[in-house]
Amino acid sequence: MAPIITITTDFGTRDGYVAQMKGVMLGIRSNATIIDCTHDIEPFSILEAALVINGASHYYPPGTVHVVVVDPDVGSGRRGVAVNSGDQIFVGPDNGVFSLVIRKAPCVMREIANPDFMLPCPHPTFHGRDVFAPAAAALAGGKPFDELGPLVVNPVVLHLPTPTAIADGIKGTVIHVDRFGNVTSNIQGTMMDQDDLRVIAAQTVIRGMSRFFAEVAEGKPVALVNSFGYLEIAVNRGNAAEVLGLAKGDEILVRWDRE
Amino acid sequence: MAPIITITTDFGTRDGYVAQMKGVMLGIRSNATIIDCTHDIEPFSILEAALVINGASHYYPPGTVHVVVVDPDVGSGRRGVAVNSGDQIFVGPDNGVFSLVIRKAPCVMREIANPDFMLPCPHPTFHGRDVFAPAAAALAGGKPFDELGPLVVNPVVLHLPTPTAIADGIKGTVIHVDRFGNVTSNIQGTMMDQDDLRVIAAQTVIRGMSRFFAEVAEGKPVALVNSFGYLEIAVNRGNAAEVLGLAKGDEILVRWDRE
Amino acid sequence: MAPIITITTDFGTRDGYVAQMKGVMLGIRSNATIIDCTHDIEPFSILEAALVINGASHYYPPGTVHVVVVDPDVGSGRRGVAVNSGDQIFVGPDNGVFSLVIRKAPCVMREIANPDFMLPCPHPTFHGRDVFAPAAAALAGGKPFDELGPLVVNPVVLHLPTPTAIADGIKGTVIHVDRFGNVTSNIQGTMMDQDDLRVIAAQTVIRGMSRFFAEVAEGKPVALVNSFGYLEIAVNRGNAAEVLGLAKGDEILVRWDRE
Repeated sequence: MAPIITITTDFGTRDGYVAQMKGVMLGIRSNATIIDCTHDIEPFSILEAALVINGASHYYPPGTVHVVVVDPDVGSGRRGVAVNSGDQIFVGPDNGVFSLVIRKAPCVMREIANPDFMLPCPHPTFHGRDVFAPAAAALAGGKPFDELGPLVVNPVVLHLPTPTAIADGIKGTVIHVDRFGNVTSNIQGTMMDQDDLRVIAAQTVIRGMSRFFAEVAEGKPVALVNSFGYLEIAVNRGNAAEVLGLAKGDEILVRWDRE
Repeated sequence: MAPIITITTDFGTRDGYVAQMKGVMLGIRSNATIIDCTHDIEPFSILEAALVINGASHYYPPGTVHVVVVDPDVGSGRRGVAVNSGDQIFVGPDNGVFSLVIRKAPCVMREIANPDFMLPCPHPTFHGRDVFAPAAAALAGGKPFDELGPLVVNPVVLHLPTPTAIADGIKGTVIHVDRFGNVTSNIQGTMMDQDDLRVIAAQTVIRGMSRFFAEVAEGKPVALVNSFGYLEIAVNRGNAAEVLGLAKGDEILVRWDRE
Repeated sequence: MAPIITITTDFGTRDGYVAQMKGVMLGIRSNATIIDCTHDIEPFSILEAALVINGASHYYPPGTVHVVVVDPDVGSGRRGVAVNSGDQIFVGPDNGVFSLVIRKAPCVMREIANPDFMLPCPHPTFHGRDVFAPAAAALAGGKPFDELGPLVVNPVVLHLPTPTAIADGIKGTVIHVDRFGNVTSNIQGTMMDQDDLRVIAAQTVIRGMSRFFAEVAEGKPVALVNSFGYLEIAVNRGNAAEVLGLAKGDEILVRWDRE
């Protein structure tokens, strides 16, 4: 069966860097199904890549290999690694980009040290093409994971903000703003066990939760639990980040209205 | 043979939403050939998506399944539907996005109501992933169209502006501005049966029709019948919308110069 | 084996033009593996497309067909051509877009004149869809190259700036600025055979060469030989073009510090 390889980068597409990676992969596994996850990660944003690959990989069949290259320290001492979740494989730099993936299941991580998994003489500024693409294609083709290199037991892990309980609610943080301007917090829907509540962000107060955008009038703000399970603030047919003046890192409050 | 599925959305790619849809599809039909049509539809622009899928689907082989997700009312009462043209299948929300496709041939439309065509517990804000992607993959894999759900006999249809005959010509409207700034009207080439004519848009008057852009000098405006069969105004090696100050909805006049 | 076809254009994706090309290809070779190289070439920039396809094609397996459509003179007298490098095939307009590819190996170029390689009645503004896509799919499917049309012995070739030796170094030019703002010159790494040197661009002087970005502090400029083998100026975790005020066509000096 054709192996599936997804690619997530901050490369954009216009310079052909991703196209070079795809060529390397097809040179090794000509029958691979290569899927563009995204190449529009904000340049150097390891956190954004960690969130996106965590969300997307969940939906892929067993055996899929995911390559993630957001790699500002390429060429330095940072390791290249592959993560085996038992079900899927992740390939990329050891810079925290797999922080969320490795939380979900017991994983084995190995350093990519064996030159058989690389192009000859990898260039110090482009491991995406010369190390991660060939390693992914080799692994997708069944080359044994154990031959990659030594075990990694102390991977780099991102510090992620966590929501905190306050007297009458929860205090969280905006962790992502999507293409539509929808604002995702780090507050999980399961933490919001009250019906009567207000969501407060910048100057906006939203009373109660909705299930979908069009429950409120066009242009009005709405709070809901999004498809990842987190509290999201949106504007029906609008851009919440722009309209409400919200950005990554901003505070989001949930206050219970019980009494 | 590997089934072909195309995807058209207003999701962009950077958040990984489309990647999630692709994962769902490959989980159901691992050998599907998934084609990105575009993910750069203007957010919420049902008309733009209707134009793009109408233009693109025309060139795909029989059996192709086209998924279109521009879906501001996701989660509300609006139906999810699939359209069988006899030759190809279209999957998406019943909000007018298939208005042009269903004009071209007798079609059968069914509501996607059978849970066998969905992921369990579809999230109210992401039917693209939880309803349309699995339905498309199931249909591409040969699951019978008739099992989807009840027939839809009154689909939502977009109101599209139509050109009108005037005393000495035709009055039309700009319906699309493309990546190059080329300006497409709703006036069909077949309506322009005179050789001597002027095309008038904003402050610009163009005498006569050309066949291609480079028939006029660099930077000059040109009128031609485009590859969709409609009157288009362009600027040779330039951006007509910017240079001539034209935008979607603007009036375009064709005046016969007979006498 | 499934043939591989890559597509490089300045079309963007939002209008569905590329999707139409893919549909045509799949209609002819339904098992083709179609790879998006990039559709974000700067509109009408033949040089940018020439650089990108030259860099990317190098990594693809033998037998790959590369379609390149940056084609401002579509419909005029300019020829459509295919280039056979013995190993790979390139398809596109004869406007210089293959200038770099044909330098690397002895190639045979033929005009696409045989209607069997086209859709019927090609539209004068969209040879990407009506000529180049079907020709590429036919060639990828094994239709003989020699049947395309007459040999082309005088292809259009771009004038590319070349670096010049000066008294105490080399004078070169910025030929590309990438998505990260990294600035590529036309000075090859192999020309820089001195260890003690300064790289001078606009108001910035960089002493010595580095191997990778993170060798300098965050926000600092760095000079290195990039993954294409050319002198590149970057800023660690920053956008060199913006920070240093550099753009395509600007002068780059290398001065030897020997004495």
